[in-house]
Amino acid sequence: MEKHNFVNIQGLDREQLLYLIEMAQEFEKYPNRELLKGKVIATLFYEPSTRTRLSFETAANRLGARVIGFTDAKVSSVSKGETLKDTILMVSNYADAIVMRHYIEGAAQYASEVAPVPIINAGDGAHQHPSQCLLDLYTIYQTQGTLENLNIYLVGDLKYGRTVHSLLMAMRHFNPTFHFIAPKELAMPEEYKVYCREHNIRFEEHEDFTPEVIANADIIYMTRVQKERFSDLMEYERVKNVYILRRDMLSLARSNMKILHPLPRVNEIAYDVDDSPHAYYIEQARNGLFAREAIFCHCLGISMEEVKNDKTILE
Amino acid sequence: MEKHNFVNIQGLDREQLLYLIEMAQEFEKYPNRELLKGKVIATLFYEPSTRTRLSFETAANRLGARVIGFTDAKVSSVSKGETLKDTILMVSNYADAIVMRHYIEGAAQYASEVAPVPIINAGDGAHQHPSQCLLDLYTIYQTQGTLENLNIYLVGDLKYGRTVHSLLMAMRHFNPTFHFIAPKELAMPEEYKVYCREHNIRFEEHEDFTPEVIANADIIYMTRVQKERFSDLMEYERVKNVYILRRDMLSLARSNMKILHPLPRVNEIAYDVDDSPHAYYIEQARNGLFAREAIFCHCLGISMEEVKNDKTILE
Amino acid sequence: MEKHNFVNIQGLDREQLLYLIEMAQEFEKYPNRELLKGKVIATLFYEPSTRTRLSFETAANRLGARVIGFTDAKVSSVSKGETLKDTILMVSNYADAIVMRHYIEGAAQYASEVAPVPIINAGDGAHQHPSQCLLDLYTIYQTQGTLENLNIYLVGDLKYGRTVHSLLMAMRHFNPTFHFIAPKELAMPEEYKVYCREHNIRFEEHEDFTPEVIANADIIYMTRVQKERFSDLMEYERVKNVYILRRDMLSLARSNMKILHPLPRVNEIAYDVDDSPHAYYIEQARNGLFAREAIFCHCLGISMEEVKNDKTILE
Repeated sequence: MEKHNFVNIQGLDREQLLYLIEMAQEFEKYPNRELLKGKVIATLFYEPSTRTRLSFETAANRLGARVIGFTDAKVSSVSKGETLKDTILMVSNYADAIVMRHYIEGAAQYASEVAPVPIINAGDGAHQHPSQCLLDLYTIYQTQGTLENLNIYLVGDLKYGRTVHSLLMAMRHFNPTFHFIAPKELAMPEEYKVYCREHNIRFEEHEDFTPEVIANADIIYMTRVQKERFSDLMEYERVKNVYILRRDMLSLARSNMKILHPLPRVNEIAYDVDDSPHAYYIEQARNGLFAREAIFCHCLGISMEEVKNDKTILE
Repeated sequence: MEKHNFVNIQGLDREQLLYLIEMAQEFEKYPNRELLKGKVIATLFYEPSTRTRLSFETAANRLGARVIGFTDAKVSSVSKGETLKDTILMVSNYADAIVMRHYIEGAAQYASEVAPVPIINAGDGAHQHPSQCLLDLYTIYQTQGTLENLNIYLVGDLKYGRTVHSLLMAMRHFNPTFHFIAPKELAMPEEYKVYCREHNIRFEEHEDFTPEVIANADIIYMTRVQKERFSDLMEYERVKNVYILRRDMLSLARSNMKILHPLPRVNEIAYDVDDSPHAYYIEQARNGLFAREAIFCHCLGISMEEVKNDKTILE
Repeated sequence: MEKHNFVNIQGLDREQLLYLIEMAQEFEKYPNRELLKGKVIATLFYEPSTRTRLSFETAANRLGARVIGFTDAKVSSVSKGETLKDTILMVSNYADAIVMRHYIEGAAQYASEVAPVPIINAGDGAHQHPSQCLLDLYTIYQTQGTLENLNIYLVGDLKYGRTVHSLLMAMRHFNPTFHFIAPKELAMPEEYKVYCREHNIRFEEHEDFTPEVIANADIIYMTRVQKERFSDLMEYERVKNVYILRRDMLSLARSNMKILHPLPRVNEIAYDVDDSPHAYYIEQARNGLFAREAIFCHCLGISMEEVKNDKTILE
């Protein structure tokens, strides 16, 4: 089997993204298989991230692989002064692929350079979370029938939110129009606006978050204003309730419009939105399973043909 | 497959209890199967409970299912301000059933109302621990050949011990005579005596714990006097050694009498009792495996017929 | 299946060691099998040891077994005042074998005396770590083609390092010549020199660590000078950098010489050694998988014939 890493989303071109989305579709049809029977996946979480870990572990298990790993390096003995390189080489002895969450930016990239087995980045600091981005793309494709020419509204913390930055870059292949809705203090950083201009991505900025502003949205991508990102807690208290999506704000929404959120939400989407036909964040999380099954197969060299002609499907 | 929750023991009628006991018998004959191959079970432990978790995880694994989850919400990142509902919906995306231990009474009931997948209560505060109750019933049936017309002695902490309360209520279908042996401070609460009267359950109360008092017992159910239940530690020190079962107290016991205990024990059963033919608490713990295999099948819609005609048995 | 414990390395004679090494060779050829399908292995880590745990869990999973357990008794609820005996009996109800790491010397031996299922010692205090010793022997055999008549150099902390003590005792069957290279404060304890004399094991002691001293080595076994072993931190600071193996010290080495280390290393092997053909510590860790697969089969009564004629091999 051929080795591929899955470390960042920018490294994937249009064809590769569409390929992974097509593969995820296959797994949505039949999630339970034994394609990875006999394989061992390591999940190394240097910081806890329960949702991401459960999603990856489910994907591995539903493909018939086995899982080893640790859930928090602080309660594990893994470091003991050992370099990341030695740890990765040690685990590469045991596992066929390594899913890795690390608090340092670039840790997954470095690991991928030293490991003989594929590295899958499950988040490295504030930097990358490419499997989240793939499931976001898959969800947009699933709900809109296309990735092309969409109006995508990013709302909330656009300064620190790595999911919105990744989405922005990954969508460059598909001619989107972005709308950035954020308080000034959490506005989209200048570097990403430069990125948009360089890649001919249209964008508009708004400070208001009203029915009129979002009336043309195909996708509204909400994000959590995370307390831990603020050095000034007074500032956090001032903005935390400003960009909340309430049911009555959906009155002018397009019928195809879907609301996404990387979860967990705290209060940025009011609970009365949950019953709206526009709410799609729980289904989005479910797509994490299919996207991660596709990532595992991609990294372990299992082809689309094998996935489509798979005789190991469990009913 | 049909969805059933397993949230409390009172909700099960006589037929349902006997049905689950019969199914547990099948699993005692052949515990290792692949009936749940392709299924994923989530074990969400909001407070640690290693024995219960290991027993459920063994049951899932011996049925061929895979397990995901967390062992302690404090070292996990699962909350981050997320509601229980959102967490349960998120995990329902990944797992076919959820085993849940929570420190809040009623948490499992609430989860069962919002989850699209079956919820199995592995303990909610001081409230319910229905899988423990089922294994207790199974053990009584296994050792006595019947659940009918038995003399059951409950000893120790009858005030805070949820296992004895559940057992009392579940046995109402089987015409038992209960004997409550406890210090005044830990006596059976008035509400359970009312329950007994309403359901025509005979009971006697004793403060003494002597060979003569327990001579007619078919079952002696010992419980731990848990330090953490006491606000007054002086009171704990006074009563902790009063209701200890020693070997020499078994001189008048019936030959069929068995001693049960939900474990862990600290010192409430002296170690010289372990070699007695009356000691049965280790075997009782083993029955947790078979009872929990039955619970999984019940919750995932696997019928008695499928269990009895199972072609997936592993020798 | 016959029950064997794997508690200490001295209890194994020459034939048994060679038998396990031969079995490990089979697993190196085909590590992925279903020989233990339907079996459950418990990994009980009373203190964290992530490397050892991952290696055992990989071995269990690659043989088709399932794994239950806990990774750190402090964050588990397993004790609650329960005796080790009760815990072991409880877990024996669920698992077909128990891998156990404990901070108390002799804990695994005691467990093996009370458990109805095999106990595998994954380290008990400073006492024994027999699976590490078996993988060391396997690695020596693999790299030298024999265990007989070798020059083995033990370097670093020979006072507290249990791996070097176990290796010394296990090698008594194979006519080795040992060289002890350590600072005075961490010299090989007198009792092991007595052991050598009693078993006709030749040994020399050196304080210098130079190319000339190691020129005749077949194996150089490096160990970590662990800070946590020192009561006097000044003493630690003085010796910690003395016995470091650098690339330029290999100039006179035999071509067959291999460098081993139980890992993790901190700085006792310079990183420029990693690319040397003499470096073998990462491959050595990999052998932990094969050695532990052999240990599981040995303990669960699976014969060499079954391993060699195995129809469950996964490609």
